[in-house]
Amino acid sequence: MAVTYRDIKADILGKITRGEWKPGSLIPGELELAETYGSARATVNRAMRELAEDGIIERKRKSGSRVRLSPLRQARFDIPIVRREIEERGAAYRYALVESEVVRAPDWVRARMGLSPGETVRHLVCLHFADGTPYQHEDRWINLAVLPQARDADFRSEGPNEWLVAHIPFSEAEISISATVADATLAAHLACAAGDPLLQIERSTRWHGRAVTYVRLVHHRGHRMTARY
Amino acid sequence: MAVTYRDIKADILGKITRGEWKPGSLIPGELELAETYGSARATVNRAMRELAEDGIIERKRKSGSRVRLSPLRQARFDIPIVRREIEERGAAYRYALVESEVVRAPDWVRARMGLSPGETVRHLVCLHFADGTPYQHEDRWINLAVLPQARDADFRSEGPNEWLVAHIPFSEAEISISATVADATLAAHLACAAGDPLLQIERSTRWHGRAVTYVRLVHHRGHRMTARY
Repeated sequence: MAVTYRDIKADILGKITRGEWKPGSLIPGELELAETYGSARATVNRAMRELAEDGIIERKRKSGSRVRLSPLRQARFDIPIVRREIEERGAAYRYALVESEVVRAPDWVRARMGLSPGETVRHLVCLHFADGTPYQHEDRWINLAVLPQARDADFRSEGPNEWLVAHIPFSEAEISISATVADATLAAHLACAAGDPLLQIERSTRWHGRAVTYVRLVHHRGHRMTARY
Repeated sequence: MAVTYRDIKADILGKITRGEWKPGSLIPGELELAETYGSARATVNRAMRELAEDGIIERKRKSGSRVRLSPLRQARFDIPIVRREIEERGAAYRYALVESEVVRAPDWVRARMGLSPGETVRHLVCLHFADGTPYQHEDRWINLAVLPQARDADFRSEGPNEWLVAHIPFSEAEISISATVADATLAAHLACAAGDPLLQIERSTRWHGRAVTYVRLVHHRGHRMTARY
Protein backbone atom coordinates (compact mmCIF):
# COMPACT_ATOMS: atom_id res chain seq x y z
CA MET A 1 0.00 0.00 0.00
CA ALA A 2 1.16 3.52 -0.73
CA VAL A 3 2.69 5.60 2.06
CA THR A 4 0.28 8.34 3.17
CA TYR A 5 1.20 11.80 4.42
CA ARG A 6 -0.06 10.66 7.82
CA ASP A 7 2.51 7.84 7.91
CA ILE A 8 5.26 10.27 7.02
CA LYS A 9 4.08 12.83 9.56
CA ALA A 10 3.93 10.19 12.30
CA ASP A 11 7.38 8.87 11.41
CA ILE A 12 8.96 12.33 11.47
CA LEU A 13 7.16 13.23 14.70
CA GLY A 14 8.49 10.00 16.23
CA LYS A 15 12.06 10.89 15.22
CA ILE A 16 11.62 14.29 16.87
CA THR A 17 9.94 13.11 20.10
CA ARG A 18 12.49 10.30 20.53
CA GLY A 19 15.24 12.89 20.13
CA GLU A 20 16.77 11.34 16.98
CA TRP A 21 16.21 14.68 15.29
CA LYS A 22 17.23 17.26 17.89
CA PRO A 23 15.64 20.69 18.41
CA GLY A 24 17.28 23.17 16.03
CA SER A 25 18.62 20.49 13.67
CA LEU A 26 18.16 20.60 9.91
CA ILE A 27 15.62 18.19 8.39
CA PRO A 28 16.44 16.45 5.07
CA GLY A 29 14.98 18.14 2.00
CA GLU A 30 11.61 17.11 0.57
CA LEU A 31 13.13 15.35 -2.44
CA GLU A 32 15.39 13.32 -0.17
CA LEU A 33 12.47 12.46 2.15
CA ALA A 34 10.30 11.48 -0.82
CA GLU A 35 13.04 9.06 -1.89
CA THR A 36 13.42 7.70 1.66
CA TYR A 37 9.68 7.09 2.03
CA GLY A 38 9.17 6.02 -1.60
CA SER A 39 6.40 8.61 -1.95
CA ALA A 40 5.48 11.54 -4.13
CA ARG A 41 7.05 14.86 -3.17
CA ALA A 42 3.53 16.33 -2.70
CA THR A 43 2.89 13.72 0.02
CA VAL A 44 6.03 14.71 1.91
CA ASN A 45 5.11 18.35 1.38
CA ARG A 46 1.74 17.89 3.03
CA ALA A 47 3.28 16.11 6.04
CA MET A 48 5.84 18.91 6.43
CA ARG A 49 3.17 21.58 6.09
CA GLU A 50 1.11 20.04 8.88
CA LEU A 51 4.15 19.66 11.13
CA ALA A 52 4.85 23.36 10.55
CA GLU A 53 1.21 24.27 11.29
CA ASP A 54 1.40 22.22 14.48
CA GLY A 55 4.42 24.28 15.53
CA ILE A 56 6.82 21.30 15.46
CA ILE A 57 9.10 22.41 12.63
CA GLU A 58 10.08 25.70 11.04
CA ARG A 59 10.17 25.89 7.25
CA LYS A 60 12.36 28.39 5.46
CA ARG A 61 12.33 28.63 1.70
CA LYS A 62 16.07 29.03 1.30
CA SER A 63 17.72 27.39 4.28
CA GLY A 64 15.41 24.36 4.56
CA SER A 65 13.34 23.06 7.46
CA ARG A 66 14.47 22.68 11.05
CA VAL A 67 13.07 21.13 14.20
CA ARG A 68 11.86 24.09 16.27
CA LEU A 69 14.02 24.89 19.30
CA SER A 70 10.89 24.90 21.39
CA PRO A 71 7.53 23.94 19.95
CA LEU A 72 5.14 26.78 19.22
CA ARG A 73 2.28 25.88 21.49
CA GLN A 74 -1.16 26.83 20.35
CA ALA A 75 -4.29 26.01 22.24
CA ARG A 76 -7.42 25.90 20.10
CA PHE A 77 -10.68 26.54 21.86
CA ASP A 78 -13.99 25.88 20.19
CA ILE A 79 -16.29 28.86 20.65
CA PRO A 80 -19.74 27.40 20.04
CA ILE A 81 -23.05 29.19 20.35
CA VAL A 82 -23.98 28.92 24.03
CA ARG A 83 -27.12 26.88 23.38
CA ARG A 84 -25.06 24.25 21.61
CA GLU A 85 -22.38 24.36 24.32
CA ILE A 86 -25.00 23.66 26.99
CA GLU A 87 -26.80 20.98 24.97
CA GLU A 88 -23.49 19.24 24.23
CA ARG A 89 -23.05 18.89 27.99
CA GLY A 90 -26.35 17.05 28.03
CA ALA A 91 -28.19 19.84 29.84
CA ALA A 92 -31.45 21.53 28.93
CA TYR A 93 -31.02 25.05 27.57
CA ARG A 94 -33.18 27.99 28.51
CA TYR A 95 -32.86 31.60 27.39
CA ALA A 96 -34.15 34.76 29.01
CA LEU A 97 -34.08 38.38 27.86
CA VAL A 98 -33.38 40.65 30.84
CA GLU A 99 -33.08 44.10 29.26
CA SER A 100 -33.51 45.58 25.80
CA GLU A 101 -33.11 49.16 24.59
CA VAL A 102 -32.14 51.23 21.55
CA VAL A 103 -29.74 53.96 22.67
CA ARG A 104 -26.97 56.26 21.54
CA ALA A 105 -23.82 54.28 22.15
CA PRO A 106 -22.25 55.23 25.50
CA ASP A 107 -18.73 56.63 25.14
CA TRP A 108 -16.99 53.43 26.24
CA VAL A 109 -18.97 51.33 23.74
CA ARG A 110 -18.33 53.88 20.99
CA ALA A 111 -14.60 53.78 21.73
CA ARG A 112 -14.58 50.00 21.96
CA MET A 113 -16.47 49.48 18.69
CA GLY A 114 -15.01 52.46 16.82
CA LEU A 115 -18.42 54.06 16.16
CA SER A 116 -19.11 57.67 15.12
CA PRO A 117 -20.59 60.05 17.70
CA GLY A 118 -24.37 59.79 17.92
CA GLU A 119 -24.61 56.32 16.37
CA THR A 120 -27.31 54.17 17.85
CA VAL A 121 -26.99 50.64 19.10
CA ARG A 122 -29.33 47.93 20.29
CA HIS A 123 -28.31 46.99 23.81
CA LEU A 124 -29.41 43.63 25.18
CA VAL A 125 -28.84 41.85 28.46
CA CYS A 126 -29.60 38.13 28.37
CA LEU A 127 -29.21 35.07 30.51
CA HIS A 128 -28.53 31.51 29.42
CA PHE A 129 -29.45 28.65 31.74
CA ALA A 130 -28.28 25.02 31.85
CA ASP A 131 -30.81 22.74 33.55
CA GLY A 132 -32.30 25.81 35.20
CA THR A 133 -28.99 27.05 36.62
CA PRO A 134 -27.53 30.34 35.37
CA TYR A 135 -24.70 29.49 32.98
CA GLN A 136 -23.82 32.69 31.13
CA HIS A 137 -24.66 36.38 31.41
CA GLU A 138 -24.59 38.20 28.06
CA ASP A 139 -24.19 41.97 27.73
CA ARG A 140 -24.53 42.69 24.01
CA TRP A 141 -24.28 45.82 21.83
CA ILE A 142 -25.26 45.75 18.13
CA ASN A 143 -24.37 48.52 15.64
CA LEU A 144 -27.63 49.59 13.98
CA ALA A 145 -25.75 51.40 11.18
CA VAL A 146 -24.57 47.99 9.92
CA LEU A 147 -27.56 45.91 11.03
CA PRO A 148 -30.67 48.15 10.97
CA GLN A 149 -32.87 45.03 11.14
CA ALA A 150 -31.66 44.58 14.75
CA ARG A 151 -33.65 47.68 15.81
CA ASP A 152 -36.98 45.86 15.66
CA ALA A 153 -35.85 42.24 15.93
CA ASP A 154 -37.59 40.32 18.68
CA PHE A 155 -35.02 38.87 21.04
CA ARG A 156 -37.52 37.57 23.58
CA SER A 157 -37.47 33.98 22.41
CA GLU A 158 -34.19 33.74 20.50
CA GLY A 159 -30.82 35.04 21.71
CA PRO A 160 -28.92 37.69 19.73
CA ASN A 161 -26.01 35.33 19.11
CA GLU A 162 -28.17 32.96 17.07
CA TRP A 163 -29.91 35.87 15.38
CA LEU A 164 -26.53 37.37 14.42
CA VAL A 165 -25.20 34.08 13.07
CA ALA A 166 -28.30 33.80 10.89
CA HIS A 167 -27.81 37.35 9.57
CA ILE A 168 -24.01 37.64 9.40
CA PRO A 169 -22.68 34.12 9.73
CA PHE A 170 -19.13 34.71 8.51
CA SER A 171 -17.51 37.60 10.31
CA GLU A 172 -14.12 38.39 11.82
CA ALA A 173 -13.82 38.56 15.58
CA GLU A 174 -11.36 39.49 18.25
CA ILE A 175 -11.79 37.54 21.43
CA SER A 176 -10.31 38.32 24.81
CA ILE A 177 -10.42 36.21 27.97
CA SER A 178 -9.99 37.67 31.43
CA ALA A 179 -11.05 37.27 35.04
CA THR A 180 -13.63 39.57 36.54
CA VAL A 181 -15.45 39.82 39.83
CA ALA A 182 -19.19 39.56 40.49
CA ASP A 183 -20.80 42.86 41.42
CA ALA A 184 -24.23 42.79 43.10
CA THR A 185 -26.12 42.60 39.77
CA LEU A 186 -23.97 39.83 38.28
CA ALA A 187 -24.10 37.95 41.58
CA ALA A 188 -27.91 38.08 41.55
CA HIS A 189 -28.11 36.96 37.90
CA LEU A 190 -25.49 34.22 38.16
CA ALA A 191 -26.58 33.01 41.60
CA CYS A 192 -23.17 33.53 43.16
CA ALA A 193 -21.75 35.78 45.87
CA ALA A 194 -20.66 39.34 45.18
CA GLY A 195 -16.87 39.25 44.98
CA ASP A 196 -16.73 35.81 43.35
CA PRO A 197 -14.15 35.45 40.55
CA LEU A 198 -15.78 34.83 37.15
CA LEU A 199 -14.39 33.99 33.71
CA GLN A 200 -15.24 36.68 31.15
CA ILE A 201 -15.05 36.47 27.37
CA GLU A 202 -15.26 39.66 25.34
CA ARG A 203 -15.79 39.49 21.61
CA SER A 204 -15.71 42.29 19.04
CA THR A 205 -17.04 41.29 15.64
CA ARG A 206 -16.40 43.03 12.32
CA TRP A 207 -17.97 42.36 8.98
CA HIS A 208 -16.22 43.64 5.89
CA GLY A 209 -14.26 46.00 8.13
CA ARG A 210 -17.17 47.51 10.09
CA ALA A 211 -17.99 46.92 13.75
CA VAL A 212 -21.09 44.75 14.01
CA THR A 213 -21.31 43.81 17.66
CA TYR A 214 -19.47 43.82 20.95
CA VAL A 215 -20.39 41.32 23.64
CA ARG A 216 -19.25 40.59 27.17
CA LEU A 217 -20.02 37.04 28.29
CA VAL A 218 -19.61 36.30 31.99
CA HIS A 219 -19.83 32.69 33.11
CA HIS A 220 -21.09 30.99 36.24
CA ARG A 221 -18.55 30.52 39.00
CA GLY A 222 -16.17 27.62 38.32
CA HIS A 223 -16.53 27.74 34.53
CA ARG A 224 -13.46 26.54 32.60
CA MET A 225 -12.32 26.58 29.01
CA THR A 226 -10.37 23.44 28.17
CA ALA A 227 -8.25 22.45 25.19
CA ARG A 228 -5.53 19.98 24.27
CA TYR A 229 -2.39 20.38 22.22
CA MET B 1 -0.50 32.77 -14.17
CA ALA B 2 -1.89 29.60 -12.67
CA VAL B 3 -4.74 29.80 -10.16
CA THR B 4 -3.47 29.06 -6.64
CA TYR B 5 -5.41 27.35 -3.85
CA ARG B 6 -5.42 30.73 -2.10
CA ASP B 7 -7.27 32.32 -5.04
CA ILE B 8 -9.84 29.53 -4.98
CA LYS B 9 -10.21 29.71 -1.21
CA ALA B 10 -10.71 33.50 -1.32
CA ASP B 11 -13.23 33.20 -4.15
CA ILE B 12 -15.29 30.55 -2.36
CA LEU B 13 -15.10 32.49 0.93
CA GLY B 14 -16.35 35.58 -0.92
CA LYS B 15 -19.32 33.65 -2.33
CA ILE B 16 -20.17 32.49 1.19
CA THR B 17 -19.74 35.84 2.99
CA ARG B 18 -21.72 37.68 0.27
CA GLY B 19 -24.49 35.14 0.73
CA GLU B 20 -24.35 33.75 -2.83
CA TRP B 21 -23.74 30.34 -1.32
CA LYS B 22 -26.13 30.15 1.62
CA PRO B 23 -25.53 28.39 4.94
CA GLY B 24 -26.48 24.72 4.58
CA SER B 25 -26.28 24.73 0.76
CA LEU B 26 -24.41 22.13 -1.24
CA ILE B 27 -21.11 23.19 -2.80
CA PRO B 28 -20.21 21.97 -6.33
CA GLY B 29 -17.98 18.90 -6.42
CA GLU B 30 -14.21 19.19 -6.65
CA LEU B 31 -14.07 18.08 -10.27
CA GLU B 32 -16.63 20.70 -11.23
CA LEU B 33 -14.80 23.40 -9.27
CA ALA B 34 -11.49 22.39 -10.87
CA GLU B 35 -13.10 22.88 -14.26
CA THR B 36 -14.62 26.24 -13.25
CA TYR B 37 -11.29 27.56 -11.95
CA GLY B 38 -9.20 25.89 -14.65
CA SER B 39 -7.01 24.32 -11.99
CA ALA B 40 -5.84 20.90 -10.88
CA ARG B 41 -8.21 18.98 -8.64
CA ALA B 42 -5.49 18.86 -5.95
CA THR B 43 -5.51 22.67 -5.86
CA VAL B 44 -9.28 22.75 -5.28
CA ASN B 45 -8.88 20.00 -2.71
CA ARG B 46 -6.40 22.04 -0.69
CA ALA B 47 -8.68 25.12 -0.75
CA MET B 48 -11.63 22.99 0.41
CA ARG B 49 -9.55 21.34 3.12
CA GLU B 50 -8.53 24.71 4.55
CA LEU B 51 -12.11 26.00 4.44
CA ALA B 52 -13.13 22.90 6.37
CA GLU B 53 -10.31 23.40 8.89
CA ASP B 54 -11.39 27.02 9.32
CA GLY B 55 -14.89 25.79 10.17
CA ILE B 56 -16.51 27.42 7.12
CA ILE B 57 -17.64 24.29 5.26
CA GLU B 58 -18.46 20.71 6.20
CA ARG B 59 -17.08 17.93 4.02
CA LYS B 60 -18.77 14.57 3.78
CA ARG B 61 -17.30 11.80 1.71
CA LYS B 62 -20.58 10.61 0.26
CA SER B 63 -22.97 13.54 0.25
CA GLY B 64 -20.47 16.24 -0.79
CA SER B 65 -19.51 19.52 0.90
CA ARG B 66 -21.89 22.08 2.35
CA VAL B 67 -21.59 25.59 3.74
CA ARG B 68 -21.83 25.17 7.52
CA LEU B 69 -25.11 26.32 9.03
CA SER B 70 -23.13 28.31 11.53
CA PRO B 71 -19.37 28.55 11.32
CA LEU B 72 -17.42 26.47 13.81
CA ARG B 73 -15.58 29.17 15.67
CA GLN B 74 -12.18 28.30 16.99
CA ALA B 75 -9.95 30.72 18.83
CA ARG B 76 -6.27 29.87 18.71
CA PHE B 77 -4.16 31.18 21.53
CA ASP B 78 -0.39 31.05 21.39
CA ILE B 79 0.99 29.64 24.62
CA PRO B 80 4.61 30.82 24.65
CA ILE B 81 7.16 30.33 27.38
CA VAL B 82 6.57 33.18 29.82
CA ARG B 83 10.03 34.71 29.29
CA ARG B 84 9.32 35.03 25.58
CA GLU B 85 5.81 36.36 26.24
CA ILE B 86 7.23 39.11 28.45
CA GLU B 87 10.12 39.93 26.11
CA GLU B 88 7.73 40.12 23.14
CA ARG B 89 5.90 42.87 25.02
CA GLY B 90 9.17 44.75 25.10
CA ALA B 91 9.62 44.31 28.86
CA ALA B 92 12.65 43.03 30.77
CA TYR B 93 12.18 39.52 32.16
CA ARG B 94 13.25 38.45 35.64
CA TYR B 95 12.78 35.05 37.26
CA ALA B 96 12.76 34.13 40.94
CA LEU B 97 12.52 30.76 42.67
CA VAL B 98 10.32 31.07 45.76
CA GLU B 99 10.08 27.49 47.04
CA SER B 100 11.59 24.15 46.10
CA GLU B 101 11.10 20.72 47.66
CA VAL B 102 11.06 17.01 46.83
CA VAL B 103 7.99 15.43 48.42
CA ARG B 104 5.54 12.58 48.17
CA ALA B 105 2.79 13.87 45.92
CA PRO B 106 -0.11 15.22 47.99
CA ASP B 107 -3.39 13.40 47.31
CA TRP B 108 -4.85 16.13 45.10
CA VAL B 109 -1.69 16.25 42.93
CA ARG B 110 -1.61 12.45 42.76
CA ALA B 111 -5.24 12.41 41.62
CA ARG B 112 -4.72 15.24 39.18
CA MET B 113 -1.62 13.70 37.58
CA GLY B 114 -2.68 10.05 37.90
CA LEU B 115 0.37 9.03 39.96
CA SER B 116 0.76 5.87 42.04
CA PRO B 117 0.66 6.17 45.85
CA GLY B 118 4.02 7.14 47.32
CA GLU B 119 5.45 8.58 44.10
CA THR B 120 7.68 11.58 44.62
CA VAL B 121 7.48 14.89 42.86
CA ARG B 122 9.61 18.01 42.67
CA HIS B 123 7.45 20.91 43.77
CA LEU B 124 8.49 24.43 42.74
CA VAL B 125 6.96 27.84 43.30
CA CYS B 126 8.33 30.54 41.01
CA LEU B 127 7.66 34.13 40.08
CA HIS B 128 8.09 35.79 36.70
CA PHE B 129 8.49 39.56 36.54
CA ALA B 130 8.01 42.01 33.66
CA ASP B 131 10.02 45.21 34.16
CA GLY B 132 10.18 44.41 37.86
CA THR B 133 6.41 43.97 38.25
CA PRO B 134 5.02 40.52 39.14
CA TYR B 135 3.56 39.02 35.97
CA GLN B 136 2.95 35.33 36.66
CA HIS B 137 2.97 33.04 39.69
CA GLU B 138 3.92 29.44 38.86
CA ASP B 139 3.05 26.48 41.08
CA ARG B 140 4.72 23.48 39.43
CA TRP B 141 4.81 19.74 40.14
CA ILE B 142 7.19 17.41 38.24
CA ASN B 143 6.88 13.60 38.25
CA LEU B 144 10.30 12.23 39.28
CA ALA B 145 9.41 8.73 38.06
CA VAL B 146 9.44 10.09 34.48
CA LEU B 147 12.05 12.81 34.92
CA PRO B 148 14.47 11.70 37.67
CA GLN B 149 16.91 14.42 36.53
CA ALA B 150 14.49 16.98 37.93
CA ARG B 151 15.33 15.85 41.50
CA ASP B 152 18.71 17.59 41.50
CA ALA B 153 18.21 20.15 38.74
CA ASP B 154 19.01 23.69 39.82
CA PHE B 155 16.00 25.89 39.21
CA ARG B 156 17.47 28.97 40.90
CA SER B 157 18.53 30.71 37.71
CA GLU B 158 16.36 29.04 35.05
CA GLY B 159 12.62 28.38 35.34
CA PRO B 160 11.23 24.82 35.18
CA ASN B 161 9.26 25.59 32.01
CA GLU B 162 12.43 26.24 30.02
CA TRP B 163 14.18 23.30 31.67
CA LEU B 164 11.26 21.03 30.75
CA VAL B 165 11.16 22.22 27.14
CA ALA B 166 14.88 21.43 26.88
CA HIS B 167 14.33 17.93 28.31
CA ILE B 168 10.93 16.98 26.86
CA PRO B 169 10.20 19.49 24.12
CA PHE B 170 7.40 17.62 22.36
CA SER B 171 4.72 16.53 24.77
CA GLU B 172 0.93 16.45 24.88
CA ALA B 173 -0.86 18.85 27.16
CA GLU B 174 -4.31 19.62 28.44
CA ILE B 175 -4.84 23.25 29.22
CA SER B 176 -7.65 24.76 31.23
CA ILE B 177 -8.46 28.44 31.75
CA SER B 178 -10.47 29.70 34.69
CA ALA B 179 -10.88 32.64 37.04
CA THR B 180 -9.56 32.47 40.56
CA VAL B 181 -9.28 34.84 43.48
CA ALA B 182 -6.12 36.11 45.19
CA ASP B 183 -5.62 34.67 48.67
CA ALA B 184 -3.20 36.43 51.01
CA THR B 185 -0.13 34.61 49.62
CA LEU B 186 -0.99 35.20 45.97
CA ALA B 187 -1.87 38.82 46.73
CA ALA B 188 1.55 39.33 48.33
CA HIS B 189 3.39 37.67 45.44
CA LEU B 190 1.40 39.35 42.66
CA ALA B 191 1.22 42.76 44.37
CA CYS B 192 -2.56 42.89 44.31
CA ALA B 193 -5.31 42.90 46.94
CA ALA B 194 -6.64 39.72 48.52
CA GLY B 195 -9.96 39.01 46.80
CA ASP B 196 -8.85 40.33 43.39
CA PRO B 197 -9.99 38.22 40.40
CA LEU B 198 -7.06 36.61 38.56
CA LEU B 199 -6.79 34.61 35.34
CA GLN B 200 -5.47 31.10 35.94
CA ILE B 201 -4.08 28.62 33.41
CA GLU B 202 -3.63 25.01 34.45
CA ARG B 203 -1.64 22.65 32.27
CA SER B 204 -1.18 18.89 32.58
CA THR B 205 1.54 17.50 30.38
CA ARG B 206 1.97 13.88 29.28
CA TRP B 207 4.85 12.32 27.42
CA HIS B 208 4.28 9.00 25.69
CA GLY B 209 1.21 8.56 27.90
CA ARG B 210 2.79 9.31 31.30
CA ALA B 211 2.17 12.38 33.44
CA VAL B 212 5.25 14.59 33.37
CA THR B 213 4.15 17.80 35.03
CA TYR B 214 1.18 19.75 36.31
CA VAL B 215 1.37 23.52 36.61
CA ARG B 216 -0.93 26.26 37.79
CA LEU B 217 -0.08 29.67 36.37
CA VAL B 218 -1.80 32.66 37.95
CA HIS B 219 -1.42 36.03 36.27
CA HIS B 220 -1.25 39.59 37.52
CA ARG B 221 -4.54 41.38 37.87
CA GLY B 222 -5.93 42.58 34.52
CA HIS B 223 -4.13 39.96 32.43
CA ARG B 224 -5.92 38.97 29.20
CA MET B 225 -5.52 36.32 26.56
CA THR B 226 -6.42 37.63 23.13
CA ALA B 227 -6.98 35.94 19.78
CA ARG B 228 -8.65 36.58 16.44
CA TYR B 229 -10.71 34.37 14.22
